[in-house]
Amino acid sequence: MSSNPQVLISEVGPRDGLQSVKATMPTPAKLSWIDALYASGIREIEVASFVPPKLLPQMADATEVVRHALTLPGLTVMALVPNLRGAEAALKAGVHKITLPVSASAAHSLANVRKTREEMVEEVRRIDALRRDIAPHVKMEAGISTAFGCTLQGAVAEDDVVWLAGAVIEAGADESGLSDTTGMANPAQVRRIFNRVRAEIGDKAGAAHMHNTRGLGLANCLAAYDVGVRTFDSSLAGLGGCPYAPGASGNVVTEDLVFMFEAMGVKTGIDLNKLIAARAPLMAGLPGEPLYGMTPESGLPKGFVQELAYV
Amino acid sequence: MSSNPQVLISEVGPRDGLQSVKATMPTPAKLSWIDALYASGIREIEVASFVPPKLLPQMADATEVVRHALTLPGLTVMALVPNLRGAEAALKAGVHKITLPVSASAAHSLANVRKTREEMVEEVRRIDALRRDIAPHVKMEAGISTAFGCTLQGAVAEDDVVWLAGAVIEAGADESGLSDTTGMANPAQVRRIFNRVRAEIGDKAGAAHMHNTRGLGLANCLAAYDVGVRTFDSSLAGLGGCPYAPGASGNVVTEDLVFMFEAMGVKTGIDLNKLIAARAPLMAGLPGEPLYGMTPESGLPKGFVQELAYV
Repeated sequence: MSSNPQVLISEVGPRDGLQSVKATMPTPAKLSWIDALYASGIREIEVASFVPPKLLPQMADATEVVRHALTLPGLTVMALVPNLRGAEAALKAGVHKITLPVSASAAHSLANVRKTREEMVEEVRRIDALRRDIAPHVKMEAGISTAFGCTLQGAVAEDDVVWLAGAVIEAGADESGLSDTTGMANPAQVRRIFNRVRAEIGDKAGAAHMHNTRGLGLANCLAAYDVGVRTFDSSLAGLGGCPYAPGASGNVVTEDLVFMFEAMGVKTGIDLNKLIAARAPLMAGLPGEPLYGMTPESGLPKGFVQELAYV
Repeated sequence: MSSNPQVLISEVGPRDGLQSVKATMPTPAKLSWIDALYASGIREIEVASFVPPKLLPQMADATEVVRHALTLPGLTVMALVPNLRGAEAALKAGVHKITLPVSASAAHSLANVRKTREEMVEEVRRIDALRRDIAPHVKMEAGISTAFGCTLQGAVAEDDVVWLAGAVIEAGADESGLSDTTGMANPAQVRRIFNRVRAEIGDKAGAAHMHNTRGLGLANCLAAYDVGVRTFDSSLAGLGGCPYAPGASGNVVTEDLVFMFEAMGVKTGIDLNKLIAARAPLMAGLPGEPLYGMTPESGLPKGFVQELAYV
């Protein structure tokens, strides 16, 4: 299915969602869920995180999940990597794209990856060198986490965010998105900071990764769209958050985000009914886990028709 | 308290909220709740609906509630009136402002007030005549309901909305806002229709009354703000909906809306901590009723300070 999407919805549930819940989803359930997401038209999925299984047992099957996802034609298979070692494993597994979180908050950087921000920029440089060496076709994103505030240190200076986005691009990343890891962003700030980052790194400004901690997730996505952002991270059923940013639960719900864009006439390439149907394998794989999302609960509006072009 | 508010938050919980729940809040509890809303800095409250107690027993104490609200200095005391008879009762009770819902959907108009849209325009004219006669200082809003879609008829023509907004102003209303009664609005549509209505009636374009049925409530408020709307209806704890628009529950949550604006640096004149505290008398008066709102649950962000000017 294709409908010349005007925005790219990057589904992060299988990584960001699953690593935030206590239960471990069995591998076959993960694969079924990823298949259902793909069937709805989603064409970029963060399928796993390459971290030591001791730290995140939920991600112990990362290589197997990647191998399956690679069989889905046209899907960009992404993985999160916290460092060079994870990047090496991800590259060897054959992913199309790696994403490395680099925190704009000094306190969060130490808590999340036990490295300073400057050390993380050097990690980007090392990962870039490795990639050029063993998998030069693979894309690398360095996402700026806690870009809009930090539950540990409070406010994060906008200058720090702009500096860091420039630094990771200089160190070799292909793009740098901005993450509201802690759910503290507001629309005015989103517009201001994305505009500044774009002025610094141009088209290498990447995805908006928003959380719905205070209910502003979609408003912040709209604000980002208004200033030219065209890639949005979200999680089916709003699964996920960040285990090292207390109280920061709640990714933007993919279903509501896709509904917003499609209702606005902005094509996502995603079939809303099939997307909502993808909640079933998620529920089957994580029995008892609370699912979020208003659109699945209310249903699509009377008379709402999605124009989808099948090719 | 005053901080030169840049937007007016019009709290509709005591009317829209209470008329949508099955339980009837005891009058003393209503008064305590209204006092708490006022104490937080809210300066416009829709305190009651003047409808026959047979239809809405929750509103049987409308006159008593209005009488109490009138003792709060600087508060604009609003009431909803469905028709001339309700308007007469509200004017006699001494309200500062009446609001009459006029549906842009032919089907919803008949279901909600058993009148055609044209008959409702004539009702506006009769109410205006009455008001000029007995209470010329009282303001009258005619809010266009189902302005963004209807659960009964589906899509609502934008031309109908623009025509109706012009017609009610011509018939004597001071202002005409737009209501997403059914939770079907999207930000692109909100900007388009408010722009068209403003082109038609200028500064007489009134409040944005949004619902959160599909999670887009705040995004739609942001969209309305972007095109110049400065009055927003919302309901503490998201209480409410429309009993005659099935599945349309969920007013925008006042707490989240105020947080969004204050975080953006747009002054509301409302103290967020006191606003969140106003949930206590609501809970006390409606035991067991589910309350919504993300900001009260997550708390204010670390380091978040509201600049409030006390005079």
